[in-house]
Amino acid sequence: MDLYHQDHFHDECGVFGVYNHPEAANLVYLGLYALQHRGQESAGIISVDERLFLATRGPGLVADVFRRNELDGLKGKQAIGHVRYSTSGGSNNARNRQPLMVDTAHGGMAMAHNGNLVNAVEMRRTLERRGSIFQSTMDTEVIVHLTALSRRKSFVERLVDALSQVEGSYALLAMNEQCIIAARDPYGIRPLVLGRIGENSYVVSSETCALNLIEAEFIRDVEPGEVILIGPQGVESFFPFPRRKRCLCIFEYIYFARPDSNIDGVNVYATRKRIGMRLAQEHPVLEADLVIPVPDSGVPAALGFAHASGIPFELGIIRNHYVGRTFIEPQQSIRHFGVKIKLNPNPDIIQGKHVVLVDDSIVRGTTSRKIVKMVRAAGAKSVHLRISSPPTTHPCYYGIDTPTQSELLASSHSVEEMRTYVTADSLAFLSLEGMYAAVNGHGLGYCDACFSGRYPVPFPHHEENAQLTLLQENQEFER
Amino acid sequence: MDLYHQDHFHDECGVFGVYNHPEAANLVYLGLYALQHRGQESAGIISVDERLFLATRGPGLVADVFRRNELDGLKGKQAIGHVRYSTSGGSNNARNRQPLMVDTAHGGMAMAHNGNLVNAVEMRRTLERRGSIFQSTMDTEVIVHLTALSRRKSFVERLVDALSQVEGSYALLAMNEQCIIAARDPYGIRPLVLGRIGENSYVVSSETCALNLIEAEFIRDVEPGEVILIGPQGVESFFPFPRRKRCLCIFEYIYFARPDSNIDGVNVYATRKRIGMRLAQEHPVLEADLVIPVPDSGVPAALGFAHASGIPFELGIIRNHYVGRTFIEPQQSIRHFGVKIKLNPNPDIIQGKHVVLVDDSIVRGTTSRKIVKMVRAAGAKSVHLRISSPPTTHPCYYGIDTPTQSELLASSHSVEEMRTYVTADSLAFLSLEGMYAAVNGHGLGYCDACFSGRYPVPFPHHEENAQLTLLQENQEFER
Amino acid sequence: MDLYHQDHFHDECGVFGVYNHPEAANLVYLGLYALQHRGQESAGIISVDERLFLATRGPGLVADVFRRNELDGLKGKQAIGHVRYSTSGGSNNARNRQPLMVDTAHGGMAMAHNGNLVNAVEMRRTLERRGSIFQSTMDTEVIVHLTALSRRKSFVERLVDALSQVEGSYALLAMNEQCIIAARDPYGIRPLVLGRIGENSYVVSSETCALNLIEAEFIRDVEPGEVILIGPQGVESFFPFPRRKRCLCIFEYIYFARPDSNIDGVNVYATRKRIGMRLAQEHPVLEADLVIPVPDSGVPAALGFAHASGIPFELGIIRNHYVGRTFIEPQQSIRHFGVKIKLNPNPDIIQGKHVVLVDDSIVRGTTSRKIVKMVRAAGAKSVHLRISSPPTTHPCYYGIDTPTQSELLASSHSVEEMRTYVTADSLAFLSLEGMYAAVNGHGLGYCDACFSGRYPVPFPHHEENAQLTLLQENQEFER
Amino acid sequence: MDLYHQDHFHDECGVFGVYNHPEAANLVYLGLYALQHRGQESAGIISVDERLFLATRGPGLVADVFRRNELDGLKGKQAIGHVRYSTSGGSNNARNRQPLMVDTAHGGMAMAHNGNLVNAVEMRRTLERRGSIFQSTMDTEVIVHLTALSRRKSFVERLVDALSQVEGSYALLAMNEQCIIAARDPYGIRPLVLGRIGENSYVVSSETCALNLIEAEFIRDVEPGEVILIGPQGVESFFPFPRRKRCLCIFEYIYFARPDSNIDGVNVYATRKRIGMRLAQEHPVLEADLVIPVPDSGVPAALGFAHASGIPFELGIIRNHYVGRTFIEPQQSIRHFGVKIKLNPNPDIIQGKHVVLVDDSIVRGTTSRKIVKMVRAAGAKSVHLRISSPPTTHPCYYGIDTPTQSELLASSHSVEEMRTYVTADSLAFLSLEGMYAAVNGHGLGYCDACFSGRYPVPFPHHEENAQLTLLQENQEFER
Repeated sequence: MDLYHQDHFHDECGVFGVYNHPEAANLVYLGLYALQHRGQESAGIISVDERLFLATRGPGLVADVFRRNELDGLKGKQAIGHVRYSTSGGSNNARNRQPLMVDTAHGGMAMAHNGNLVNAVEMRRTLERRGSIFQSTMDTEVIVHLTALSRRKSFVERLVDALSQVEGSYALLAMNEQCIIAARDPYGIRPLVLGRIGENSYVVSSETCALNLIEAEFIRDVEPGEVILIGPQGVESFFPFPRRKRCLCIFEYIYFARPDSNIDGVNVYATRKRIGMRLAQEHPVLEADLVIPVPDSGVPAALGFAHASGIPFELGIIRNHYVGRTFIEPQQSIRHFGVKIKLNPNPDIIQGKHVVLVDDSIVRGTTSRKIVKMVRAAGAKSVHLRISSPPTTHPCYYGIDTPTQSELLASSHSVEEMRTYVTADSLAFLSLEGMYAAVNGHGLGYCDACFSGRYPVPFPHHEENAQLTLLQENQEFER
Repeated sequence: MDLYHQDHFHDECGVFGVYNHPEAANLVYLGLYALQHRGQESAGIISVDERLFLATRGPGLVADVFRRNELDGLKGKQAIGHVRYSTSGGSNNARNRQPLMVDTAHGGMAMAHNGNLVNAVEMRRTLERRGSIFQSTMDTEVIVHLTALSRRKSFVERLVDALSQVEGSYALLAMNEQCIIAARDPYGIRPLVLGRIGENSYVVSSETCALNLIEAEFIRDVEPGEVILIGPQGVESFFPFPRRKRCLCIFEYIYFARPDSNIDGVNVYATRKRIGMRLAQEHPVLEADLVIPVPDSGVPAALGFAHASGIPFELGIIRNHYVGRTFIEPQQSIRHFGVKIKLNPNPDIIQGKHVVLVDDSIVRGTTSRKIVKMVRAAGAKSVHLRISSPPTTHPCYYGIDTPTQSELLASSHSVEEMRTYVTADSLAFLSLEGMYAAVNGHGLGYCDACFSGRYPVPFPHHEENAQLTLLQENQEFER
Repeated sequence: MDLYHQDHFHDECGVFGVYNHPEAANLVYLGLYALQHRGQESAGIISVDERLFLATRGPGLVADVFRRNELDGLKGKQAIGHVRYSTSGGSNNARNRQPLMVDTAHGGMAMAHNGNLVNAVEMRRTLERRGSIFQSTMDTEVIVHLTALSRRKSFVERLVDALSQVEGSYALLAMNEQCIIAARDPYGIRPLVLGRIGENSYVVSSETCALNLIEAEFIRDVEPGEVILIGPQGVESFFPFPRRKRCLCIFEYIYFARPDSNIDGVNVYATRKRIGMRLAQEHPVLEADLVIPVPDSGVPAALGFAHASGIPFELGIIRNHYVGRTFIEPQQSIRHFGVKIKLNPNPDIIQGKHVVLVDDSIVRGTTSRKIVKMVRAAGAKSVHLRISSPPTTHPCYYGIDTPTQSELLASSHSVEEMRTYVTADSLAFLSLEGMYAAVNGHGLGYCDACFSGRYPVPFPHHEENAQLTLLQENQEFER
Repeated sequence: MDLYHQDHFHDECGVFGVYNHPEAANLVYLGLYALQHRGQESAGIISVDERLFLATRGPGLVADVFRRNELDGLKGKQAIGHVRYSTSGGSNNARNRQPLMVDTAHGGMAMAHNGNLVNAVEMRRTLERRGSIFQSTMDTEVIVHLTALSRRKSFVERLVDALSQVEGSYALLAMNEQCIIAARDPYGIRPLVLGRIGENSYVVSSETCALNLIEAEFIRDVEPGEVILIGPQGVESFFPFPRRKRCLCIFEYIYFARPDSNIDGVNVYATRKRIGMRLAQEHPVLEADLVIPVPDSGVPAALGFAHASGIPFELGIIRNHYVGRTFIEPQQSIRHFGVKIKLNPNPDIIQGKHVVLVDDSIVRGTTSRKIVKMVRAAGAKSVHLRISSPPTTHPCYYGIDTPTQSELLASSHSVEEMRTYVTADSLAFLSLEGMYAAVNGHGLGYCDACFSGRYPVPFPHHEENAQLTLLQENQEFER
């Protein structure tokens, strides 16, 4: 499975910042390239040149938003950037592009945010009642307002003041004309890492893969609840919030993060492979001829499954990487090419074979059903679907764009009912225990709410929340 | 002279709104077409469909910003629109497009504004100190904030509360999900008119020419200091502000407004023609062969001059209307084609003639100098420049983008010195009295600060104002 | 009336070439700017750098097709350019952009052509039968083929050989890697002039206005039937074709050419004014209050009419120059804004007045009807329409895109019937004699086929011609 | 290695045609999507609607060239399409987009061509001498001319006549208003297959993967030297050319074709895997820890190598699929991110390991050198590079865009010298025999000229050929 599938979780955002480098914006641009898998809907970079904030934000991929002209305009030695998928804020709405840039009593400020606040609507209502106006529907604007309203003296104190008032997930970069602040919520739900490039230039990134690209040195993960101030006086660390149980989103390992990243010290590719091995042990398929991944995200788990089971691994489904945002279906067609345009089974490999198909998750089930049927149509004698995560029974409120609970196939169907629906010969999911065994070598905590319904951050009236949000989804059309 | 000349005043903005019409956005689009001369830098329309605000804003001409797709997306029965040149807010900065659209405690709100506040920077500082954030550098955002902060009960009361706190010029449209409010500052500096289309649909426009285009009925000018609420209960009028001496910008008659518009009951074309007649009486040219206007804006005054003097009128300079925003000069050229690309003298008409050249104003003088030289190079025996307004000695602080005082040729040069600079055989300006005689048939007051230095609206520290504004001109680059 | 009106003749093309100048392409670009009124559908420039031909061709206005990048790519010291409206070749068909550029046995060749061949379809059929292939539907490609097929020794001889085989109108530029050739058909139907810039750089242009813009010196008109070779050895002139009676298209004076151009030594503006004076003498309007032109093209004739009649001239209709290619009508509207979006009557001027309305021609009559109604709706007591040319009774086969004969209102209606149709109080046309009196001071011949039906160049089966052309209008869609 | 690497062979083109289907153009569009790997520079589709030919051609990917509007315009029941990389004809030159579309004495004709003619320049010179003109620099235009010139009676006979006169490689589609003709050169150098969709609709494609996508039935490969006429009378097959030894380009198996395609009955993926197994046998690496492919093209061979050697397979290099055509390097950087932006090693997998790196070929060697260094920098103890083809010592003259012989690293370096250059610990290539053993199960012939220098199709003066071509690379810039 992969990012383009509409029947899937969507990762929401990636952030990247560079402090004290003569080509700050260009490095942020490269960093966003490496984080592109975290959001393909819009991209933006804001730099500071003396006291002047300079911004370019636009729809589409990093490669489309920025040309030489745009980057040349983003002067200055510090810059932050953002790639986004929707989440809060309507999809592809010109109002909702990050980073945000505002003027305040203390000068300019820019902010880029990956995550979701559970009390965003409440805070927004409170702020509106005291007279604040909102120009986007992004949670981030709440944090910006609270920061501007704070009476504290320094920028970092004001930001901490603001963050003390919100609940939810955030991996956040804030910038004024002198410094960049990185903050990770007390639960550590979203990843964030610190790096260095050259002697005195610092980098903050959602994932380590972006550090690798620009050949920055990895220093360490930003800790849950940590606020890091990077400024003229160097790097300072604060832990201003009450300590919480660490709850890193476990789905980062299963699907979101890029395989060559390490999150909190654990390599994603290696974890996915261990998951596949565990899956093979928990739910073996006897007499299968091939293990075939649903590319690209299913590949490492399938490799692990093949390794543990001894069943040969084959790239029996080819993914077409030239697919654009939209493609045009024949109008009189009764078939839909939606999945086939991206995923093409290789009949020569599949024909007459008993196939183990490895994918990372089942959301609505419609895509899985299409893929199973496609593999069978390519000649498979049997299709055994193995999912490298537990059944997804609950929606995410911490920044992942999931369907509502009722749309999640696993929320209302037994595994056997799901098997029937996706038309597989057998279907099995990794157990929660198996997942933890594969992921967790060192006793850390994770958020597994989408599998367990145990939400670590309490949230008030979340259904009304969604309701309220929708009611004010004012939109700006693209030009 | 004309709008494209860089050596000129620039009119800043036009506003247009439609209430209670099934094709509100499409009518606003047509209205903005007719107001395009008031701003070519960006255009925007916001409509309301139920409680949903829908926006399209973009750089360039109305014809470029809106295609069928964009207009189709702007559903709803009420809409407001805006065309802008810079003024406050940097030129061609993506942050500074109107109408503004925000969410507040009372729901969505949109605002479109033509004018300039003299206490904008002060108010902004005050607002920022209490925690407000600014996402643009437009004065309009100050009014939006003040409206959102007001504790009054109704939308119109909150807007009035906000407007009570600002000083300067505004012709303004504000819209929430139920009504449109039109307001004109107590001095009446910028024009604004009310019209009706069909039985129960209302229209507000910067100029009457836009009413004519959509075949709306002209009801009346919005009065200085008047606030008009157009909502489900019909049209209500308020005069909530202390009465001021009326001070309509007299430059609207001389240059800004379209000739087929009436402002405060007076036709612009007819006024310009009377100005030209008066100019001929005040500063006749003996033994001239031709009266030639600098097209397009100089045409009516030249017709008047020719009529009063008996000297034949000829279109001796042709204006090329296909000129785009930029054109590309030969790189090794020592000549500059900047003016010639737009204005082309007809040598056959001019050759061997004594020419009266009529233009509307001299700002920096560089363009006038080029035109005089161009006419002479086309064979004129003599060039007598007649300006259909008094010398422009002072900058405007009420919404017109003028150069600073030191850049205004007339601020530091006598008429004779100006004549030498522009290389004319003679140069004369309309007198202030002559201008009033031509404009004013009915005893109303005007702002003539750019000619007289008498600023009707007091402003604090305007030079620092400009300074402060510049310091925070954060920019967003186009994508 | 003006170029944008759909109910009108459309001028088709303009050509411009520069030989031996270091910024040849940039000068061609400026020249095309000045010739933009001759074609707004597409534009193109081809330069030669050593033996390399470089081209940029695209849809739209000159300002849209060429940016700095494109011009920088067009290196070399010689270049030719073209602006086009349709004529032969479908409208806005990507296949049909000029200049053409081909490789032949003698190297590269480029060609730009204004005109229409009456034997194009026959020649095309003949060429196809001997194996030639056609990639466009433009007549120009016939000339290119014939040139390539010629066995003559030099480029100019081959071109002359080709032109000897075609009949019709052409003002043509051909270029190989060493020289530019300018040719004008033996009838001289389309204008073409020669100029010089600097010492040794030569310019060829459809009209003199483009020479003026780039400050080139006018040398002389290219003569009917003349072929001018501009190359390393200087400028050589040939008259290789049988002599014909000169037949310059008289409509160039009435409508097509820019007023500041001289054609065959006669100034266009002055001619139009004389036409207006003559029209006032032939068809006076007693007791009229105003003479109002339909802008922009009707202005000079209206000035002449006012001058001769003593009736005051007023710009009672304002033309909006910001109108784009398309605009979007309200969908439920019963009114059509097609004319109003461009032409706006000034009710204050017109109200209660007897109006003489001066336009240049009536084609289908639908636009005239709309304008008359619009002026009456603006309050005119009476509308007396005066047309500054005789009734247009016949289509043009020499390069002007006219409707078929049956669509021409004057082909089947008496003047009185036309008056009724356009709803004018009176209607009168300039007489053929009057037109000649105004245009012709020096006994030259003109083509007046559109008024008289006397076609100077015989053409075979022209209706079938049109038919055949249509059958092969293969199209390329814009990307 | 992959298609984007600049240091690589580039596949040139793909063709796809549909006969007798109500949504012919839309199916061609989908087919081109599946063939996108064969050319990303431009794409085009031409359909026939009655006698009208309709075209859309443009730069970039299929997803960029065609939107709903474009496809809707391509009416008719038959259509052919083309994706291209450069080859003959300059890269990204607007003149050189396919399919070609011309008018001839027999009506319209369109042609799409994958391949390269070795006598193209000679034929072009001959044609030019007899008067033909060339509007592109593509070999295809030669075939078009020869077809138009043929005196034979039917379309298929004329095309055969034309193809009899050319030498080289072609997989070609030609279309007139009644039929589509598919032709494959007598050597069968480029692949071409025939399929059926529904009862009576036929499909021709460069590869089977495109048939799979639209769920067309595979009928059979078009045979070398076969000409297939698909028209109202059904499908007819001809073998009009002298029989030649079959010489399918073996590089199709190694790199060009998509893994899920079958070429001449042999599956590409399976072949690559066999190649990898053979490579492991020929050049084993003792004590290696991992087999890592250079993605995407190296994956199947690496799987085969891992399978045969028992060394674990790992996706140790991640490919970023969001990379656009260009990306912007930091300007002061001494490092180049050219390869890193696309290929990212996973240090956690590689660190401390002895690595077998599997790639498909070495061209100039610069990319291989960068990749080896990158893997070593990621912590590999040793890097053993294994290439799944023999050393590339000779350029291709049959349609593949290779550098000149002197630029091919293997043409002048021993394997040991190449190893030193790419900085690998060991380097080995598959033997020619090993390649045949892996590919060839059924005794067919292949072209292996790039490895062996044995060119099956004789060509005259190929170096001059290239020279001549370059001299006339006239260009059209993009708009």
